[in-house]
Amino acid sequence: MRNLTMMTDLYQLTMMYGYFKSGMTKNQAVFDLFFRRCSPNSAYCIMAGTQSVIDYINDLRFTEEDIAYLRTLNLFDEDFLRMLSTLRFTGEIYGMEEGTLVFPNEPLLRVKAPIIEAQLVETALLNFVNSQTLIASKAARVVYAAAGDVVMEFGLRRAQGPDAGIYGARAAVIAGCAGTSNVLTGEMFDVKVMGTHAHSWVQSFPTEIDAFRAYARTFPDACMLLVDTYDTLRSGVPNAIKVFDELRAEGHEPVGIRLDSGDLAYLSKKARVMLDEAGYPNAGICASSDLDEMVIRDLKIQGAKINSWGVGTKLITSSDNPALGGVYKMSAEIVDGRMIPKIKLSENVEKLTNPGYKKVFRLYSQKGMAIADLIALDEETLDASKPLRLYHPEQTYKSKVVENFTVRELLVPLFIDGKQVYTSPSVMEMQAYCKRELATLYEESKRTLNPHAYKVDISDKLYDLKKELINKNREL
Amino acid sequence: MRNLTMMTDLYQLTMMYGYFKSGMTKNQAVFDLFFRRCSPNSAYCIMAGTQSVIDYINDLRFTEEDIAYLRTLNLFDEDFLRMLSTLRFTGEIYGMEEGTLVFPNEPLLRVKAPIIEAQLVETALLNFVNSQTLIASKAARVVYAAAGDVVMEFGLRRAQGPDAGIYGARAAVIAGCAGTSNVLTGEMFDVKVMGTHAHSWVQSFPTEIDAFRAYARTFPDACMLLVDTYDTLRSGVPNAIKVFDELRAEGHEPVGIRLDSGDLAYLSKKARVMLDEAGYPNAGICASSDLDEMVIRDLKIQGAKINSWGVGTKLITSSDNPALGGVYKMSAEIVDGRMIPKIKLSENVEKLTNPGYKKVFRLYSQKGMAIADLIALDEETLDASKPLRLYHPEQTYKSKVVENFTVRELLVPLFIDGKQVYTSPSVMEMQAYCKRELATLYEESKRTLNPHAYKVDISDKLYDLKKELINKNREL
Repeated sequence: MRNLTMMTDLYQLTMMYGYFKSGMTKNQAVFDLFFRRCSPNSAYCIMAGTQSVIDYINDLRFTEEDIAYLRTLNLFDEDFLRMLSTLRFTGEIYGMEEGTLVFPNEPLLRVKAPIIEAQLVETALLNFVNSQTLIASKAARVVYAAAGDVVMEFGLRRAQGPDAGIYGARAAVIAGCAGTSNVLTGEMFDVKVMGTHAHSWVQSFPTEIDAFRAYARTFPDACMLLVDTYDTLRSGVPNAIKVFDELRAEGHEPVGIRLDSGDLAYLSKKARVMLDEAGYPNAGICASSDLDEMVIRDLKIQGAKINSWGVGTKLITSSDNPALGGVYKMSAEIVDGRMIPKIKLSENVEKLTNPGYKKVFRLYSQKGMAIADLIALDEETLDASKPLRLYHPEQTYKSKVVENFTVRELLVPLFIDGKQVYTSPSVMEMQAYCKRELATLYEESKRTLNPHAYKVDISDKLYDLKKELINKNREL
Repeated sequence: MRNLTMMTDLYQLTMMYGYFKSGMTKNQAVFDLFFRRCSPNSAYCIMAGTQSVIDYINDLRFTEEDIAYLRTLNLFDEDFLRMLSTLRFTGEIYGMEEGTLVFPNEPLLRVKAPIIEAQLVETALLNFVNSQTLIASKAARVVYAAAGDVVMEFGLRRAQGPDAGIYGARAAVIAGCAGTSNVLTGEMFDVKVMGTHAHSWVQSFPTEIDAFRAYARTFPDACMLLVDTYDTLRSGVPNAIKVFDELRAEGHEPVGIRLDSGDLAYLSKKARVMLDEAGYPNAGICASSDLDEMVIRDLKIQGAKINSWGVGTKLITSSDNPALGGVYKMSAEIVDGRMIPKIKLSENVEKLTNPGYKKVFRLYSQKGMAIADLIALDEETLDASKPLRLYHPEQTYKSKVVENFTVRELLVPLFIDGKQVYTSPSVMEMQAYCKRELATLYEESKRTLNPHAYKVDISDKLYDLKKELINKNREL
């Protein structure tokens, strides 16, 4: 990975300089990284980006060239630049593991560090978690709509740059895609790479059947033919069947056909009949062409005969909501060893932050289904043997008592005293974990249209602290 | 830059293998990279990504590790892997310079190379040009709406990964942003970096005025204060004015204030009056908070007193259209030295490709305004002394005669015989060029709502060739 230490907003450096010049270098602070809203028609997100955070923190150091460049800005003095040149991350980070179900307002990362370090890393941490969690969450919705069919990530050419393609494909696989077309992602993360041929292959032979024959000769046991270059039903499918017959005569079974344009519902049904009648009931039909969870769901409702889905642009850019609005807010300062909780006020109630050094509990029913998350202060414990009253996060007059639940804490230590203490599992292990996570979420919160919001409450202690700080600040 | 040779779709490699096994390694092909539609409410795009293409092509080579990984896929034989291990780009690439006004259907890049090379590079070229052109085009619209005010790119934390942040900021500066918050982009491309402080700065002091004083002490000559942490008009602006008075007493002039939430029209007008009455008519008001061209235009219509704009999420993700649908289509094959034009048919008329080895002319009026672009075959010349009849690209019964025009060819050579023959200007030179380019476009095609489509026609020769190929293919 490239060193991304300089990938920060200038105001982080000007603030760091301000803290340095104001003698506040030793002050520690706690910051929470969280988002306030899921994408439209979605009630959950899938955490991703944790490994990028780890790599970045481990690599955090300004090079001599960086310092020389910063000097040219004429903003900083030499004492500060000298301090920067030896700066390393010395703090603590807790975070969610990749593949975890996550919800609005709960800390995905919790950073406790000297304020200049905590401030420096804000932008990069947000960039990693916002972008990768966004794509993992979108992919989970697409995979859900495909209802057990294979979904392949095909979006590299439309991704917002190389990282978006590489880490977007990784996030998509974590969330359940069977593989990606992106060979570099395959190489870097040991995930399955997929793909066959394009229209240009067909164009570069004198006729379609020449192109199909050449492809079948090259990959006799992995023969998936793209049938829509000229005329899907009059030329593409009949030519594919001819070549499948030739393949079978030589002892090979074809994989299937791919449709990349036109009316996918109609064409797939017609093609299915043609393949079945020709003796290829096991030949698959793969579809691509501007797909997303809504289109897949709709095609399934129409009875389209498609059993694998190549999803590109709309997945890799999360086109209906191309940014997760994750923020990074100070929740406490530690001055002379004393933790002082902090709040950010706003005229907009939902933008009030949760103060203090916090953790997140997930409550499960006896059947292992997730009931609610509870954001609490770090010192709190939860006695699962007693009934617990949960309040609606905004409409606090609504509440509900839960009993007979089990509890799990969601934040795990990633760095302690600047040392990495967590090792990520492989991407395929993350995928298996994510599948288990999604199995704990009720269907009502997973459905494609108007899903039911999942409950995220705050503990009574946190609620009292929040009210106290609001009142105190209002008096100022 | 990292080596991105493996950043390709698997099907490029399977097709390359197919060509290799079919004895077609020596065949040359021509591919055009183009897009079919601008974003909604936009009639033009700004080319970006050319430098990334150049870096990528120069670095194109498979490492030993890459070859070892490809071997594990069990798809390719050793002859092919040996060929890959020495593969370099040996072809020709023509392209648009960064900052150029570009329009639907015209080639932004034209690649002529052995088919296996031309196929390999497809995905990466699309990724670079799609993502960077998208953001440059969005930024141009935002800068246009700001009508001469300073626009700053602030989106790194919401960008779809590091590259999207780094190269997105670069694209935004090419298209007219005055600078970016992204320090790494500043270091890499020598563009201006901008920013002051965040809410967390204010939170980390006992009171707002303490925070403002500390900031003013640190940056007495670059003092821009964020005034909305607690209460903009009752606390933020009055405290800022107090600190400005103290600064002035010590011989420094403040830069201004920043608003990051609330009703920007109302707050900016009130704050303007307060600053003016306090004797700071030159203190600027900077606004940020979910801005895009539509919101900026609306705030201006309302008479908001804002003179600089920090634009984040919606610019860096091009949120109203997060992907430019650029494609890469074969337009000719060269077999035994003979150029054979190729077409990709489609039931959708606008998806018919333009065949042949082509170039792009731009026609200018005597006053230097762009009138139309003409896509022609490479061998064609255009006699500007004769009247020229232009046809509407889809409604071909509409036509218009132009006279007294001047002509410029838009595609410039980037690589000849695999050697780089083009050197990019600096990013700030690109910005100056882009400004001149935008000055040639009529206001009617630049406006924020319902802009007038710019004419892109094809030459008579190209039209005849296209019809001939359509008829020929229909007979097959």
